[in-house]
Amino acid sequence: MTKRIITISREFGSGGRFIGEEVAKKLGIAYYDREIIGQIAEQSGLSPEYIQENAELSPKKGLFAYAFSGRDITGKSVEDMVYESQIKVILEIAEKESCVIIGRNADFILRDRNDVLNVFIHGDMPEKTQRITHLYNVAEKEAVKMMADTDKRRMTNYNFYTEQKWGKASNYTLCLNSSQIGYDRCEKIIMDCM
Amino acid sequence: MTKRIITISREFGSGGRFIGEEVAKKLGIAYYDREIIGQIAEQSGLSPEYIQENAELSPKKGLFAYAFSGRDITGKSVEDMVYESQIKVILEIAEKESCVIIGRNADFILRDRNDVLNVFIHGDMPEKTQRITHLYNVAEKEAVKMMADTDKRRMTNYNFYTEQKWGKASNYTLCLNSSQIGYDRCEKIIMDCM
Repeated sequence: MTKRIITISREFGSGGRFIGEEVAKKLGIAYYDREIIGQIAEQSGLSPEYIQENAELSPKKGLFAYAFSGRDITGKSVEDMVYESQIKVILEIAEKESCVIIGRNADFILRDRNDVLNVFIHGDMPEKTQRITHLYNVAEKEAVKMMADTDKRRMTNYNFYTEQKWGKASNYTLCLNSSQIGYDRCEKIIMDCM
Repeated sequence: MTKRIITISREFGSGGRFIGEEVAKKLGIAYYDREIIGQIAEQSGLSPEYIQENAELSPKKGLFAYAFSGRDITGKSVEDMVYESQIKVILEIAEKESCVIIGRNADFILRDRNDVLNVFIHGDMPEKTQRITHLYNVAEKEAVKMMADTDKRRMTNYNFYTEQKWGKASNYTLCLNSSQIGYDRCEKIIMDCM
């Protein structure tokens, strides 16, 4: 089956988003990253700012509190409602056009399609740290903390909603260490697999 | 740094061994798989048959029994002694020549070198099952059992000796789903990354 859609999951600082954007440009297909937030907001009736804070990166509080706090009478938390909108938006995007989708558990949400190439991008600590210090203009210590926090929240969100393990090779078609392989070659490998 | 050595970890039935052997042939470099058993036997003074049963695939008994049973006065089990010989043999091979090494925690044993490309090959259940039923001439049910048993033993051995998680993307330079990518393209990607 030819692949039409690329999902990119990534460690913070690995350049996964950059690689995904370049691949979309080179293949001439749509690119979805923050664009999805606006669509989830529209679906759910919540503000884009709230979605930005809560989609993909929730919870801030740890898995236990996450699983049991703030449920309404149907057992649904606001996070769950955001997540339901996220599923709907991603399924519609995949139906509509060839594209690259960054994060947001899209690999799992689209698991019943067979035209999806699921990619996980990770990297080595020195290269990721250097990238973050440059991109966000922060000290090394702060960069290390940003990485740990962001990846922990991505992992918790993924593990909670998918019942799979974030970063486990068998969830993805292709996992690439961008520090060792290089961004250009990562792009080439992804495009070769389409 | 140019890569000289390829380690291949793999799910049972994913074709990882076959892919590794093809890559070694095409690159004209040495290939180590069962060859290592003879060398470990020589190092440790134990029989090749014993090594075959115990290296990589130990324990049969589960991690807890594995960790605490059969230790001698120095706290070493026979499994530990086999593993020490395995480390010595793999370090010597890597020093000696460019090569492909299948399994045996070689990715972790060679972690201090920067000329190693670590690959993990996995696959989808239907394709792996089909491959095993053909290769071993067994029924589907038996193939599924063989997969579960072998991968569980590989995982337990790896997790015990490396304190890393077998099959976690970040341990490897490259992880490939051979069912979706195809064996030929897997070989090409690995060779492109050398």
